[in-house]
Amino acid sequence: MSNMATKIRIVAIGKVKERYLLEAIREYEKRLVPFCKLELIELKDEGLAKEAKLLERYLGAGTFILDVGGKRFSSAEFAQFVKKQDGTLTFIIGGADGIDESLKKRASAISLSKMTFTHEMCRMFLMEQIYRAYMINSNRKYHR
Amino acid sequence: MSNMATKIRIVAIGKVKERYLLEAIREYEKRLVPFCKLELIELKDEGLAKEAKLLERYLGAGTFILDVGGKRFSSAEFAQFVKKQDGTLTFIIGGADGIDESLKKRASAISLSKMTFTHEMCRMFLMEQIYRAYMINSNRKYHR
Repeated sequence: MSNMATKIRIVAIGKVKERYLLEAIREYEKRLVPFCKLELIELKDEGLAKEAKLLERYLGAGTFILDVGGKRFSSAEFAQFVKKQDGTLTFIIGGADGIDESLKKRASAISLSKMTFTHEMCRMFLMEQIYRAYMINSNRKYHR
Repeated sequence: MSNMATKIRIVAIGKVKERYLLEAIREYEKRLVPFCKLELIELKDEGLAKEAKLLERYLGAGTFILDVGGKRFSSAEFAQFVKKQDGTLTFIIGGADGIDESLKKRASAISLSKMTFTHEMCRMFLMEQIYRAYMINSNRKYHR
């Protein structure tokens, strides 16, 4: 596991309001502690163009946008993907209106599902898959 | 919307234990009230073979098994799928060990994602997509 991502950064637009999702996110934050440094950044919801400006600084190698049209992985493939990253792995999750098209052209996109879920749920799904990836990569048993 | 599914039945193996998931499920139960009669059936987790015996009675037209290898829909396609069903639409969600192969041969399978999520989360995801389907089919705005 020498060159597995050691830091995961999730940059998301808008605050999670649902209490149950906040609880779920907190639960996976705790579970990820032994595996990586996790940084959750919530940016203000202020329209696609302004959001794009704020998100720009996170672009670069190791940054991926969550988008329903992005590349789809099985959990095992996603675990391999996490394993192959060096240093910091950054995921960008858009707000209620998605992500500005200009940004989509500048980063690879990953899709959690062909289905659209709320952007708030996406954070939970993503964290669960990241946790699952570390469990798979360290050969630990994890319930389906 | 004359022949849209009027009853949704979700038959799942095992109890949901996580409080945040129970809360999410309760939230979507409430949201679905105006759209359909919802029946949630939780069966005891007791091994694939015994579970298959209990699940058998739910097989038939309008019954679909949730399986990672099943047919994938976009949310819009899933909304069409719900619209096309008459009467009761039944979804079967397996337990921690999945679903017996013998059952898989006897019902069509639907996949929420190429990724594997916990079977407990699947209930929440499915309910969110069902709610989304009714929102789409009644032309209502619903946040991403």
